[in-house]
Amino acid sequence: MTMKIEIKKISRSEKPYLLASREAKRERTAVDVCGIKIGGGGEAVVIAGPCSVESYEQVLQTAVAVKKYGAVMFRGGAYKPRTSPYEFQGLGVEGLKILREVGDRIGLPIVTEVMSETDIETICEYADMLQVGARNMQNFALLRKLAKTKKPILLKRGASATVKEWLLAAEYILSGGNENVVLCERGIKTFDDSLRNTLDLAAVALVKELSHLPVIVDPSHATGRRSIIPILSKAALAAGADGVIVEVHPEPEKALSDGAQSLTFENFAEMMHGLTEPVRKIVGKETELAVCI
Amino acid sequence: MTMKIEIKKISRSEKPYLLASREAKRERTAVDVCGIKIGGGGEAVVIAGPCSVESYEQVLQTAVAVKKYGAVMFRGGAYKPRTSPYEFQGLGVEGLKILREVGDRIGLPIVTEVMSETDIETICEYADMLQVGARNMQNFALLRKLAKTKKPILLKRGASATVKEWLLAAEYILSGGNENVVLCERGIKTFDDSLRNTLDLAAVALVKELSHLPVIVDPSHATGRRSIIPILSKAALAAGADGVIVEVHPEPEKALSDGAQSLTFENFAEMMHGLTEPVRKIVGKETELAVCI
Amino acid sequence: MTMKIEIKKISRSEKPYLLASREAKRERTAVDVCGIKIGGGGEAVVIAGPCSVESYEQVLQTAVAVKKYGAVMFRGGAYKPRTSPYEFQGLGVEGLKILREVGDRIGLPIVTEVMSETDIETICEYADMLQVGARNMQNFALLRKLAKTKKPILLKRGASATVKEWLLAAEYILSGGNENVVLCERGIKTFDDSLRNTLDLAAVALVKELSHLPVIVDPSHATGRRSIIPILSKAALAAGADGVIVEVHPEPEKALSDGAQSLTFENFAEMMHGLTEPVRKIVGKETELAVCI
Amino acid sequence: MTMKIEIKKISRSEKPYLLASREAKRERTAVDVCGIKIGGGGEAVVIAGPCSVESYEQVLQTAVAVKKYGAVMFRGGAYKPRTSPYEFQGLGVEGLKILREVGDRIGLPIVTEVMSETDIETICEYADMLQVGARNMQNFALLRKLAKTKKPILLKRGASATVKEWLLAAEYILSGGNENVVLCERGIKTFDDSLRNTLDLAAVALVKELSHLPVIVDPSHATGRRSIIPILSKAALAAGADGVIVEVHPEPEKALSDGAQSLTFENFAEMMHGLTEPVRKIVGKETELAVCI
Repeated sequence: MTMKIEIKKISRSEKPYLLASREAKRERTAVDVCGIKIGGGGEAVVIAGPCSVESYEQVLQTAVAVKKYGAVMFRGGAYKPRTSPYEFQGLGVEGLKILREVGDRIGLPIVTEVMSETDIETICEYADMLQVGARNMQNFALLRKLAKTKKPILLKRGASATVKEWLLAAEYILSGGNENVVLCERGIKTFDDSLRNTLDLAAVALVKELSHLPVIVDPSHATGRRSIIPILSKAALAAGADGVIVEVHPEPEKALSDGAQSLTFENFAEMMHGLTEPVRKIVGKETELAVCI
Repeated sequence: MTMKIEIKKISRSEKPYLLASREAKRERTAVDVCGIKIGGGGEAVVIAGPCSVESYEQVLQTAVAVKKYGAVMFRGGAYKPRTSPYEFQGLGVEGLKILREVGDRIGLPIVTEVMSETDIETICEYADMLQVGARNMQNFALLRKLAKTKKPILLKRGASATVKEWLLAAEYILSGGNENVVLCERGIKTFDDSLRNTLDLAAVALVKELSHLPVIVDPSHATGRRSIIPILSKAALAAGADGVIVEVHPEPEKALSDGAQSLTFENFAEMMHGLTEPVRKIVGKETELAVCI
Repeated sequence: MTMKIEIKKISRSEKPYLLASREAKRERTAVDVCGIKIGGGGEAVVIAGPCSVESYEQVLQTAVAVKKYGAVMFRGGAYKPRTSPYEFQGLGVEGLKILREVGDRIGLPIVTEVMSETDIETICEYADMLQVGARNMQNFALLRKLAKTKKPILLKRGASATVKEWLLAAEYILSGGNENVVLCERGIKTFDDSLRNTLDLAAVALVKELSHLPVIVDPSHATGRRSIIPILSKAALAAGADGVIVEVHPEPEKALSDGAQSLTFENFAEMMHGLTEPVRKIVGKETELAVCI
Repeated sequence: MTMKIEIKKISRSEKPYLLASREAKRERTAVDVCGIKIGGGGEAVVIAGPCSVESYEQVLQTAVAVKKYGAVMFRGGAYKPRTSPYEFQGLGVEGLKILREVGDRIGLPIVTEVMSETDIETICEYADMLQVGARNMQNFALLRKLAKTKKPILLKRGASATVKEWLLAAEYILSGGNENVVLCERGIKTFDDSLRNTLDLAAVALVKELSHLPVIVDPSHATGRRSIIPILSKAALAAGADGVIVEVHPEPEKALSDGAQSLTFENFAEMMHGLTEPVRKIVGKETELAVCI
């Protein structure tokens, strides 16, 4: 069932993202993923896990570690969008099965990327939240089909998407009937090659002003540089983000993808230690860091 | 059937796009679309038509006009990738039928955009060449499925794709078994808002050096400004492009999309007059402008 | 007198900014401006004031207000770099005199922009710190002459400068004999027109890792949007910045320049209230917010 | 003497560059440099020479060669804007003397860069045209002083300047009393690192529509890649440019700066051969390539 929308009211130049706007809904949306609430003014969440699912053992070890230090959701790619056709493309359904089994065993909801319309049904069987990657942010056919599921969607910002284009991509999902959209800033493409992308925290502050949707930040893909991910996670929460999503790997130097930006378990433990205490203070009384026990 | 590729030979940092490279194939590829050859060092081609298919009458009028002035292929969108879900999304299959009927009646091959994996089969019934739009350049699921058809593919450059990423997107199609890829430069996203995008003709010259694939240029989307499209079409051919693709509409001010960048029939006639004579000279003996008779 | 530099040791590709690097100096530099220390791991500083000096009354009112709420240094432009020659160009020497008189009366050190080599001597008479604007970051003639003064220099990042280019601009000043350089991130030019520029807080974290120089952040120019400046000031400090510099005006809607991004006194008071408490916690024990008494 | 300008008429949002606009002056401006006319709808010009003046012998050899093949003006840097203070900074006045002597001996007007307000007088003694580099396009103090000379000015576009900002930089010179401004597109900074910068030929077409000022193109700095400079020179003229400026060096591999983008004498000869014949045709009857005899 699609929500009723009075298209005549829409003025493209003024408020083109109707349902995503704060005018449409004053209270902040909290998206519920198996009991974990993202957004809504509650606790900030930390989602962690490896870039790619490589083996059951790797996923299990990582899940145990990240849960121990405070992550409340697990990430891992079974279908990988790789720039080259000759790079590791992910384990596919085998990867999904590993994620599901480990998620159930350790007690962490699972978020994983969907790259193809024809994979949606299968992934919905295994995952608790579906991620739309930056390259597919304007894959409108995919967005329309995801709107027909009721699964929570993690909508990454395209690497060259303006804030308006990003909110309009969310609008495709909302107007199609699925209200469970979490936005994710993951860096934009600019002239500066100092880091992998340019993390745009002002966009986070802006989106929190324009929209009721939750926003999280991915400092791993945004920077590609392990050493600054913890401090930028702090900055993301200070800028108003509802959480962060980071890459963690048992042995980053052996990772099949994104090794340079993956945290070790020790790095992650330090990052979480740095976040839990002070973050409660900086973001005010009502926002604390959610920690699984 | 997929071509055999020796993955071990691939060195990502040196020559990551193996099959698209000139090292793999010294002679220039000519892609044949119903007898029209794009690339291969032959005549430059002009592809023209409206942004969106709006009605049979509109398509027919436009096709008659563009053929009269020298276009050798017809473009028109039945499925439209629109930034907002509330904008006109195209006529779908009805649009495809109109394109096919007019194409047959006037004698112009048809190129139209495919946005969804699940539309490929249908579009292949009606169109002679399938276009992958800029937003889907890294929709790898779509690219992989298009590789299984043998249809010619017009692969637009993503608005924030590097030349390497663009050639690697082509590599997905080539390595999947479809050699009929034509690249299309259509402007990139930069800080400058003077025009719709920044037309990157140096990338055209570079791709012609790195790859054997044909490259055409879309000055309509690149600039969004009618008045400079003719002179930039000249510049594109001078930079080595194998052709141009432009938007033409009977009444641009009434167009359902992209009116500001659409040429009138009169504009198109003038543009073609400006191209046919001098272009033969600037691009050298073997490249002349193909004109339908 | 210029410091002795062994140029032979310099390897451009590896560590081109020799004196600015942490390899050259492990401890963090604190730049002293009339007793206020910027950087060095001490308290974060807040610098505030109007974009342009408009009148004695405007400057006095603003200085009283910003000092009251915790600013420790005053900013104001007497020479304004304006995109158009027909825009207000600043009061020049009259503006400098106003700044000096108010600075002395209220007890706030003054920072103001220098746009011309031939103004350096005059500005040095009136100001405590000289600002190099984004447009002049690679005005090497200006940098070389500023290196001959011993005045503290606030070196804004060019709107399209990479981190490396920014540090090399600092290197011009350092290698010329002036060690008192404070870097200032003020947003970069990208494709996204949602805000005035794109604030690059990851660059702040990166520079703190690569260099011993202090770094402050200008969220006013970076965003051009009043409402998000306070929260981005928090985020800047969380990202490791040694301070922030913001625009404050008694009546922003009447400002001769940059009204849309100027805070009212009330906005500034709220921003400072939001910073003082929690920021002490987020940035750890040794970094507290410096407040003038 | 400054031209009288009625500032009240200026509407920033509509036509902020008053004197540079075609509304202010319908006929195209031709800037005369020692009898060579740039712009005005006449012959296209080719300016050539080394990036840096390195020695009398190098300059003489290059000047003889480029004149032989058709260049009508000579370029060479005596003051070099280098990203790092440790790189070769140019020969200064010695370089100017070499340029003047060779220019007189061979009969080629000289264009060279001015980086400092305090060098203007000296450079005016030796050079026929003064170049403002991309990094100084918004060095307003420099522009204002150059407006007081009557020398022709070659105003390079800043690497992140919009077309509007570029025309407003020209407006500083025009409104200060110097009408002899030639604009030069030299590539902009974008996300794509395939080439040194992104050559923006659509901006050339746009500026020719908005302004009466001459525009030339520098494909050497725009691309940094020797092999594609000749074909992009063709494309620049096809896009409406009034000329090109290219780097030529007797032994590019030994150049003190910009070797990778410098043409050898042989490359230059080929490029000119490629331009002279066809270019006459493509740009229409009244625009031919000016060749020194």
